[in-house]
Amino acid sequence: MGALHEGHGALIRCAQKENDICIVSIFVNPAQFGPKEDFKRYPRTLEKDKGFLKRMKVDVLFLPSAKEMYPQGFESTVETGQLGRVLCGRSRPGHFNAVATVVIKLLNIVEPRTMVLGQKDAQQVIILKRIVADFDFKTRIRICPTERNTLGLALSSRNRYLNGRERLEALVLYRSLKEASARIKGKERSAQKITDGIRALIQRHTHGTIDYIACVDAATLQPLTMIKGRVMLALAVRFGKARLIDNMIVNAA
Amino acid sequence: MGALHEGHGALIRCAQKENDICIVSIFVNPAQFGPKEDFKRYPRTLEKDKGFLKRMKVDVLFLPSAKEMYPQGFESTVETGQLGRVLCGRSRPGHFNAVATVVIKLLNIVEPRTMVLGQKDAQQVIILKRIVADFDFKTRIRICPTERNTLGLALSSRNRYLNGRERLEALVLYRSLKEASARIKGKERSAQKITDGIRALIQRHTHGTIDYIACVDAATLQPLTMIKGRVMLALAVRFGKARLIDNMIVNAA
Repeated sequence: MGALHEGHGALIRCAQKENDICIVSIFVNPAQFGPKEDFKRYPRTLEKDKGFLKRMKVDVLFLPSAKEMYPQGFESTVETGQLGRVLCGRSRPGHFNAVATVVIKLLNIVEPRTMVLGQKDAQQVIILKRIVADFDFKTRIRICPTERNTLGLALSSRNRYLNGRERLEALVLYRSLKEASARIKGKERSAQKITDGIRALIQRHTHGTIDYIACVDAATLQPLTMIKGRVMLALAVRFGKARLIDNMIVNAA
Repeated sequence: MGALHEGHGALIRCAQKENDICIVSIFVNPAQFGPKEDFKRYPRTLEKDKGFLKRMKVDVLFLPSAKEMYPQGFESTVETGQLGRVLCGRSRPGHFNAVATVVIKLLNIVEPRTMVLGQKDAQQVIILKRIVADFDFKTRIRICPTERNTLGLALSSRNRYLNGRERLEALVLYRSLKEASARIKGKERSAQKITDGIRALIQRHTHGTIDYIACVDAATLQPLTMIKGRVMLALAVRFGKARLIDNMIVNAA
């Protein structure tokens, strides 16, 4: 969606390292924003993005218009099922259907051998893996770790909505995930205690409004009672205009 | 879906004439049958079909199992929008979503340059054109005219459900479409009068139960009041266990 930052930079380097040609799409997809969401004010920094991509020696920039992507008469969408209705899908109804729809279009237009995605959008990653498998796309999915600033804040185009205080407070998100991860490694097995711990930290140290804090199965995104296997800790918290998400995968042996 | 007949034969000849390699898929797709529909008793004549395809020198038969097509965890579907909710979609809710879903899978697995479809399933043709356009598939769609027996009955695997009397009565479907077409060419412009005429003929000469008789815009499938432009006359009538469909495109200058 553009407003490129070093998180995108890491995806590009990953793509370039493993492939001959690297194609970047920039498309602020209107369909995936809810009526009250930030489509209009979503940061658009196209000239800066172009310079960034040129310096990174990206081979192709695919920059379609909304009219090209959704011409008159367009009416098909993808229904992502249960995976799209939990976590971010609860507060963003239809969001993942629209993401899946535009990604199918991008896959068919670009025909990439590999699609590189960031782990920051963990639910999106799982849903797009599902879509690629369910619809038999031959594209491989490559996932890159979340890029963070030196203090641990996950890089996001929406971070530029944060004022100075919010930017400091938002550091608690990663801290709370790390602390929860340490407790799981220390044999805590109650999902409730883990999410309570994250909640307490965020409420104590920030003015943010918690959207969700979840401890789910990392494959199915279904909520856990007892922590077991590959677990995803995930959260979404609003700081003013910015709705920030972060997540961490923990292996509870 | 197999139970091959000369309608399929015509599609195969069309594919062979215009392409180097002809691939036929046979898959009785459970997802596109409603709970009260004929999935279990849908005719399956695989050995006969194989002989038919061999004699026609088809290059490849793609014959997947339901488990291969829908492995555990499968949960994505396509939503076809308004086009899938009218005509046959009204009495077969979800049918066209399931057709679109399986066709996307088939397109991605087979990667055909051209997909050959029969005009007999007119609504399916329009919906699959929409899907291919909306999701930017590069496959071309080639439509072949409806094959009929010498008396005019549209060939269909479901014709074998008909007993002798029903088979004779079903001839009225095509006759009623031809008569309606002639009236349109004779400048009748009331869609109501046209569908009333078709209905009267079918009711007078058959014991069939009418599902729908429609006079719609041939591109949008929206019902017409005044007949204008490219019009589709379409009908579905039940004869015993067989739900038969037929259609005719008429150009009303």
